Amino acid sequence: MCSFLVESCAWFLLSFCAVFNLDKGGIVKRRDFITRVAAAGGSTYAVMKALDLMGETASAQTGPLNLRPASDRSRVVILGAGLAGMTAAYELRKAGYRCTILEARSRPGGRCWTVRGGDQIVETTGTVQTVQFAKGEYFNPGPARIPQHHITIQYCRELGVPLQVFANLNYEQYYYNEGVPGGLAGQKVRARQAKADARGYVSELLAKAASQDRLDAQLTEDDKTRLVDFLRTYGGLDPDLFYRGNARRGYDAARQGASNNPGKINSPFSLSALINLGFAGYESFEQGYDQQMLMFQPIGGMDRIATTLAKKVGNINYGAAVTEIRKTQNGVRIVYTDQGSTKEIRADFCICTIPLSVLRTIPSDFSPDMQQAIAGVDYAVTGKSALQFNRRFWEEDENIMGGITSTNIGLGTIWYPSHNYLSQRGVVVGYYNFGAVAAEFGALSPDARVQRAIELGSRIHPQYRSHYDTGASLFWPQIPYNLGGWATYTTASRQQFYPRLNQPDGNIFLCGEHLSYLTGWMAGAFESARLVAQQINQRNG
Amino acid sequence: MCSFLVESCAWFLLSFCAVFNLDKGGIVKRRDFITRVAAAGGSTYAVMKALDLMGETASAQTGPLNLRPASDRSRVVILGAGLAGMTAAYELRKAGYRCTILEARSRPGGRCWTVRGGDQIVETTGTVQTVQFAKGEYFNPGPARIPQHHITIQYCRELGVPLQVFANLNYEQYYYNEGVPGGLAGQKVRARQAKADARGYVSELLAKAASQDRLDAQLTEDDKTRLVDFLRTYGGLDPDLFYRGNARRGYDAARQGASNNPGKINSPFSLSALINLGFAGYESFEQGYDQQMLMFQPIGGMDRIATTLAKKVGNINYGAAVTEIRKTQNGVRIVYTDQGSTKEIRADFCICTIPLSVLRTIPSDFSPDMQQAIAGVDYAVTGKSALQFNRRFWEEDENIMGGITSTNIGLGTIWYPSHNYLSQRGVVVGYYNFGAVAAEFGALSPDARVQRAIELGSRIHPQYRSHYDTGASLFWPQIPYNLGGWATYTTASRQQFYPRLNQPDGNIFLCGEHLSYLTGWMAGAFESARLVAQQINQRNG
Repeated sequence: MCSFLVESCAWFLLSFCAVFNLDKGGIVKRRDFITRVAAAGGSTYAVMKALDLMGETASAQTGPLNLRPASDRSRVVILGAGLAGMTAAYELRKAGYRCTILEARSRPGGRCWTVRGGDQIVETTGTVQTVQFAKGEYFNPGPARIPQHHITIQYCRELGVPLQVFANLNYEQYYYNEGVPGGLAGQKVRARQAKADARGYVSELLAKAASQDRLDAQLTEDDKTRLVDFLRTYGGLDPDLFYRGNARRGYDAARQGASNNPGKINSPFSLSALINLGFAGYESFEQGYDQQMLMFQPIGGMDRIATTLAKKVGNINYGAAVTEIRKTQNGVRIVYTDQGSTKEIRADFCICTIPLSVLRTIPSDFSPDMQQAIAGVDYAVTGKSALQFNRRFWEEDENIMGGITSTNIGLGTIWYPSHNYLSQRGVVVGYYNFGAVAAEFGALSPDARVQRAIELGSRIHPQYRSHYDTGASLFWPQIPYNLGGWATYTTASRQQFYPRLNQPDGNIFLCGEHLSYLTGWMAGAFESARLVAQQINQRNG
Repeated sequence: MCSFLVESCAWFLLSFCAVFNLDKGGIVKRRDFITRVAAAGGSTYAVMKALDLMGETASAQTGPLNLRPASDRSRVVILGAGLAGMTAAYELRKAGYRCTILEARSRPGGRCWTVRGGDQIVETTGTVQTVQFAKGEYFNPGPARIPQHHITIQYCRELGVPLQVFANLNYEQYYYNEGVPGGLAGQKVRARQAKADARGYVSELLAKAASQDRLDAQLTEDDKTRLVDFLRTYGGLDPDLFYRGNARRGYDAARQGASNNPGKINSPFSLSALINLGFAGYESFEQGYDQQMLMFQPIGGMDRIATTLAKKVGNINYGAAVTEIRKTQNGVRIVYTDQGSTKEIRADFCICTIPLSVLRTIPSDFSPDMQQAIAGVDYAVTGKSALQFNRRFWEEDENIMGGITSTNIGLGTIWYPSHNYLSQRGVVVGYYNFGAVAAEFGALSPDARVQRAIELGSRIHPQYRSHYDTGASLFWPQIPYNLGGWATYTTASRQQFYPRLNQPDGNIFLCGEHLSYLTGWMAGAFESARLVAQQINQRNG
């Protein structure tokens, strides 16, 4: 092993970061960093090597990962059989590393989890729900959608996990807010209506300003003419540049049909009402790079990724809860409980994918700055519920086939199922909420949470009460071995703690979504695992 | 049968329409119509009855159709086993009518058609293609997408045809135009980039105008402040109200990843370039009521609807090409060829779903104004091709999982498959074009069309040439028994001919997408069939 030199580099870098006060100075650019290190007497080679360790180029690599064969079949102990841990094992084993995975739970996947009838949801408060969903019904309590540009898609392809569209946006879905001014309070506003109207008014106002020469002088007459023409189409304006509603917002009672039924378009909402509704906030979410359609989900449940990966990896030690993480002269020593007895394992490297929210509760040898960083990152306070209904009234009565209704009444969002369209029953995500509201729901018993979801949701779908079958709920901060949703960095914690977390501590590498800019996404776990596998391979390939 | 009185009403109405010069006066409103008829001496009862015949209220009915039991088991002959004909039979048989369906082809569905390996595409020019797609691959030459609000969804539910999302819009898809000014000519512009940039600039211009008091005086200061706040979020503007690009347009080479990879956002295109690209036109299509996501397709091919309906209906006379349509004293007489011999059938009613483009070539007893109307409606000039590739390079190399790339290079649009994501091969719609360009393609041999699709498509996807397997093409005006895509009414022909086409001629009722405001949609066929079934039921229930 040539790890000593590199390890020294890493340590050198760390102390160096402290000198340059990285936590206050913001993210240091590569070029600046090299310059400063060189100025402080570090060798350029060491710095470049260190930068490689940080994975600056490695992470951009797409396609299957091709590691160099391990030079000496080093042993790697991996803490956690979530996506990060299993992916690291999957990649390292391909290169000949001997990997041992310790997993506290009796299943793989961690947050990549699907709950079906008969499954249990246990919380740290001692509550145990045995889920009663019908055969074929399921609920993804954790990640539930995959953007096309995430590496997750590539792993689904490599692993053979079939995908289907996840309906992250459906023009039939509602925006439902109570207590807002402007006339749309308590109204089920179809996404298509809000979208068409907002676009129409914005175009109308700008087109009028342009046509009345009220725009900046820098626009030529020709520019203005072309802009107005553009806006006419973009916003669906009338010839006189007014927006008065158009077919984009849909037909209501008098829909288009056969014979003499041309359909009737209703009058638009007012722009002011849309602004008060908070429409821009909803839209900006849907327009986000990671949220734009199309999005995908594995057919049959998100855990298809985890279970397929687990089969490829094999040999996961379930029921093995880590109780100590120790550094040794040349490697690591991990103490864990296994079926009630205490065991320990020694290895050359450790990849620790335990969420920071849990890791900070485990006795360890992490250096003080690492301990501080592990303690310093917040986790999302979030919960979800799942409600099985015996009739798909959202499809049958309201033409909503998949999609997400947004609310301001504590539920956050309501998700309609993106699969088994037109079938009889279905499982709806009754709420997906965050922060203080989520904590309030989380403090209730699982059953009381579901009752609350039904009570509030009935304001939007009165059919809830007559078609409810069974439900489940969970509050991530109370889920053992997670104790939170995902790492939620602030600008400050990203600057102060994130760089340290990305440096190995001795031969221990942290790994997971929390070691990425894709926090909360499965892709963060995949990317981090690839990077850590490469880093170990660079030390030992 | 009480048809005489009602028939007289219908005739009365028709002559009446002529008096009031409906073809120039536009669509007459129900109230005006009744008033005018009453003024002209018609009885209100007769008029109301006639209006019912025209289905003013009937077509708005959703849910399963419940016809009154037929009073005397009348015979109905239905010309064509497309969706309209089969739906009429399906509904009328439920009510006890004896229906006979004559279908010229050897399969049901008409344009609701799916082509698979081994199928033949025959054109009136004599060309015969035997399609070579691999097992499991298919192509929908006709309708290929279903909006959620169409009655087609309801029939899929009732018939048990499972649906999946049809990717009508994917933020990963391209807008690709050549020969346009403004710098984006020949560039593959991702939909997400164009959308984010257009929205950003429009918001920037309006926000600046508002903040500089350049908008109409009718907006209060408070309105303007709230508008600017709205636009900040809506357009993703910087604090100084400039749009400089944001994450909505995505990351390019330096994508977000693990460790120190926060990603890099590229500079936006200019608004002028987007305007010149014709972006507003593309967007307005995607924002159309019938084109908004989510859209759906039957799993396994569009013809699942037709074949399922055919099974329910049973007893379709295939290979029966209609050669004469005659009125009799109390009904109809239809002459047709069956296996080379000439046959005839008599019935009380005829539902004729033959496209007008074909119907005008068949000898008939239609009254002169009906003949004129049948001759007066244009049909879409359109064609499609399907290209099977042995690798899904659009998915693997370009992250495009479904969706439609729009071009101005003769191809119209390129459709990526919305099913079997991540699998090895796939069938792409290589072109879907219209009008003069379609006619130009249509004049080529089927193989030459495919070669042209490959040649042009290679400009967008250079991978075409190395991964092409096999292809097929068709030109709808040359498809026997269709002779065109679908009825394309102008404002004039809608006024001049459409009302007449919707009136029965004796006991012959025209039926199909061409008798609706949903022309070109399967829903038009379903709605028309329901309406005609109701009309016959009203005469004879």
